Parts: sequence; structure tokens; C-alpha cells
Amino acid sequence: MLSRGIILKSRPEGTPKPDNFAVEETGLPSLQDGEVLVRNLCMSVDPYMRGRMMDVRSYVPPFQVGKLLEGGAIGEVVESNDSQYKPGDHVESMLGWREAFVSPAGALRKLEKLQQPPSAYLGVLGMPGMTAYAGLLEVGALKEGETVFVSAAAGAVGSLVGQIALQKKCRVIGSAGGPAKTRHLTEELGFHHAIDYRKGDLLKQLREVSGEGLDVYFDNVGGDHLEAAIFCMRPGGRIPLCGMISQYNAIEPPPGPKNLIMAVGMSLTLRGFIVTNFEHLRADFLRDMGTWIESGRV
Amino acid sequence: MLSRGIILKSRPEGTPKPDNFAVEETGLPSLQDGEVLVRNLCMSVDPYMRGRMMDVRSYVPPFQVGKLLEGGAIGEVVESNDSQYKPGDHVESMLGWREAFVSPAGALRKLEKLQQPPSAYLGVLGMPGMTAYAGLLEVGALKEGETVFVSAAAGAVGSLVGQIALQKKCRVIGSAGGPAKTRHLTEELGFHHAIDYRKGDLLKQLREVSGEGLDVYFDNVGGDHLEAAIFCMRPGGRIPLCGMISQYNAIEPPPGPKNLIMAVGMSLTLRGFIVTNFEHLRADFLRDMGTWIESGRV
Repeated sequence: MLSRGIILKSRPEGTPKPDNFAVEETGLPSLQDGEVLVRNLCMSVDPYMRGRMMDVRSYVPPFQVGKLLEGGAIGEVVESNDSQYKPGDHVESMLGWREAFVSPAGALRKLEKLQQPPSAYLGVLGMPGMTAYAGLLEVGALKEGETVFVSAAAGAVGSLVGQIALQKKCRVIGSAGGPAKTRHLTEELGFHHAIDYRKGDLLKQLREVSGEGLDVYFDNVGGDHLEAAIFCMRPGGRIPLCGMISQYNAIEPPPGPKNLIMAVGMSLTLRGFIVTNFEHLRADFLRDMGTWIESGRV
Repeated sequence: MLSRGIILKSRPEGTPKPDNFAVEETGLPSLQDGEVLVRNLCMSVDPYMRGRMMDVRSYVPPFQVGKLLEGGAIGEVVESNDSQYKPGDHVESMLGWREAFVSPAGALRKLEKLQQPPSAYLGVLGMPGMTAYAGLLEVGALKEGETVFVSAAAGAVGSLVGQIALQKKCRVIGSAGGPAKTRHLTEELGFHHAIDYRKGDLLKQLREVSGEGLDVYFDNVGGDHLEAAIFCMRPGGRIPLCGMISQYNAIEPPPGPKNLIMAVGMSLTLRGFIVTNFEHLRADFLRDMGTWIESGRV
């Protein structure tokens, strides 16, 4: 059986270009004991993938030049040599960027009868949902009624952060680029305030809506947003560091926030996290998020 | 009764100069009910005082121009109109920078029979000791056998951080300026490694001694030290932010660490703290530190 996939042809410098990638068709091996043949149905393209294109030490190994890219995907079992899987089962894997693959069963997670379309298990019920849930509630230790600011708020993770915070009766401020996105935040998702960072002077805009100050800033972008948020935090505020999109394409890393010293006097906590360390929350996450989706609140 | 004290004559810009201050002699009022007259025996000059000379919002109000400076002091009661105090009692207060003062009893803390010279209660058994203890063990969540790096390691707080870490069987690295201080760290205090940051290339020096990486970096200085430490942290590392001495005299705040993005992938926690929020640890602190001092280990 043949499968087409996308390989990393060369490591991008700055913004990735099409010729950093190539399509490659390969034959799949026949199944060994304990292996499963999966045809992918959908896959996710996530900001962290930019990091894996660089040859640096991080929490996941870098993509290798000449090899297929990887990433979260939902697929359907076509053939199985493992007793846990049968044709038609839906599975989640990190083997996206390819039409089909053969894998040991241990590298797959089975999705028991789907309640939502497969792509939901890459979004609201998948890694972005889990990231928002764990980052906001566990890393950010959110309490009911607090004030929350989230950047990249129209993105997969950010929009869920805001919606979870709304379930917790919090005041929610989001930032995004452009009026279409900010309108989406306030008019469709119910955020209390939306900031269009392209309008300039992010700090001034944030100060105008942050009232008594921010209890939690969920940071997806770093850079100016992190600095502005630090200026607006309340004593004891928490800043889950989820990603720094503003820097992913940077060739020279930009300086950090010049006001980090305020973390001392204001007793702020900045805590980086990666969602794979929070598997212990998965059952809670699926229960809560399932309830919120069913009730139409997320 | 007359008392001389030091007032803030003008707010310093950059490094404070003598003419930012003046000596003033004032008469003390007679005692009202519940008040105590105290003569100071010793006082402490601490880095955080530089921050209070600026007119900015922080965890303690700024010093006022034309008013006496404040700071930790140990004194002896001379006269008392409060039933809890009698002449000869030793008290701790924030009313340093003056020879004597009249204060409500509620603003004092009584020191029950001194086990050590009064100045110890401003140091190893006082605010610096408590800062090191709470910052390392609670904020830094230090575990036995970990690797700890502390900056300003020859200072009041830093030298105690290192000594407490040694009690916890940790590998201890300190940085200080100049060979006399670094020798003091390794030869007298028993630190495993001492880095002289004046010798240049702090990151290279730190990498050479940090082995498998740092579990805790106790940050007293910010700036280059924080950036170098972030490069050397192990996954899940903790960085108590205690102060940023390198910035206290800065007129323009310097940029933050350009590698803060590593906090995401390495799951680092940076947590600012102020010792006054850790009063719940005081009894443990006095017990543990008392034991270490008596046994000659601190």
C-alpha cells in the first residue's frame, strides 16, 4: 500500500517557505504482530510544530530533515494485528502529515464511540482543549470570579481558555488581531472585552479594561503581550506560559519583558507547561468539556 | 527626649548619592496608653530599600521625601505604657534609621530571651534568614539531593540559601563578584562551586559546573544571571525570584531574559515572592535555623 506524506526538506530560517517541505510517496510495510494499519481522517497543524523544525533541545525531539513531519491526527483502523484494535476503530496518534501508516498499537490511543465529529478530538476534545483546561485550571489555578486575560484568543487554545473561564464565572478579556476576530470573541463567544492588538498601544488598551487588575494571564504569545500583562497583574497573579507565538519565527530571540522585576514585588508566578504532563486530568477534562459542549455553553 | 535619624531628602536617580539623604534631630513625644519608647541597638540596610526610594507602586509604600527612612531594627524598651512590654525587653521593628522612637506596641515584635547577639535577629534569624528559608524550601520546593544555584551568594540572603541547601544534601553553586568572595563560598561555607561573574562569560562558567542541570535557581539579581540560569535549568526547574539587584539602580529597566521561551518547553516556574507572605513558616524557620546554628552547621 502506498501513502503520501509531507517531509521536512530543509530547516526554515524565519518564516517557513513552501520549499522547506516536499511531498513524498512511500510504500507501507506489511503488518507485524501487534501492529495496526491506520488511514488518517484529519490532522492538526499547531504552532508548536514551528519549534520542532529547529534543531534545538526541547520537550520533543526536532523533526529530522528528509523525514516525515509528525503531529496529532485522528484515523480509522484499516487492518489490525493487535487484539485491542479492529477495522473501523477510531484512533488518535502523533502520526499526522501522512495518508496512512503502520504503527505498533502502543503508539495509538483508542477513541471509544465518537460523540462528536473526528476533528473535535483534535480541537475542543483534544490537545488544544486539554491545554486550555490544564493550563487555566491547574497551572493558572483559576478561581471563580477572577479576571482572566488570554492572548491569541481567537486561536484553538485561546478561544477555549476564554470559554472555560466564562464557565467559571470569570471576567474574560481576550486579544486578537483585527476586528473580525475581536467581534467573534465578544459577540459569539461572550468574552467581556476584546483587544485588537493591531490597533497599537496594547498596554493602554489592556489597562482600560483590566479594572482592579488581572488574576490570570494565559500567555500564548510572549513578547509585548507578556510585558503588558505583567504591568496589569494583581498581587499573587498567575501566568501560565503556554507558548510564545510571537517568537516562533524569530531568528534572533527578542528580549524578554523589561518589567519582569515586578514579579518580585507583586508575587507573580510565571509557569511554563506542556500538556503531556497533565494526563492525570484527562478524565476530568473529558467529563467537564463533554458537559459544556452538550449544554451548548462551549 | 531627642532622637537623630536619616531622612530622604530627594529621590535618587541611578545610584543614590549622599545628598539624597540628611540627618535630622527631632524630639520624641511623651508616651500615650499602649505606646512604648524604644532605643535602637542595631539596624539592617537591605537591597529592597532602593526600591522604596522610588515613587512607584509596590508591596510596601515608597519612602516619603522629608520623612525618616524605615527598615528592620532591633531595639531595647526604655519605657512602656503597654502591659506586654517592660524596660529591657528586646523588640524587632521596621523603625530603623533612627536612634529611638515611640510606637504603638502593635507595631513591634517581642524577641523572647535572646540566644544570639541582637544583630543575628536581623540576619540569620531575621528577615534575610526567613527569606532564604521560605524562598528556597517553599517557593523553590527544594528536594534533597537537587542542584541549586544562587546569585549574590556572598550576601545576607544568598549565603544562607546556600547553607540551607547544604543541610538538605544538595549540590550548591554560588556566584559572587571577586576572588575573596568566591573563596569564602567554597572554603568557609562549603559550597561545591563558586563562580566569579566578574571573570566574564557567566553562562560558560555556569555550564561547566551545572552538570545535569539546575533544579533550583534562587535569583537575587535578575539580568544576565537569570538568563544564564534559564539556559541551564532541568525540566520542571523552579526559580524563586527574590530580588533583581542588577536593576535596582537602573534608570531605564533592562530587557528581560531573551530565553524566557525556554520556560515553556522545559516546564519552568518563575515565582516572585516577598517574605512577609510566609509568616506561617516562622515557627519552623526558628526551630530549624536554631538547630543548624547550635550544631555549628550554619
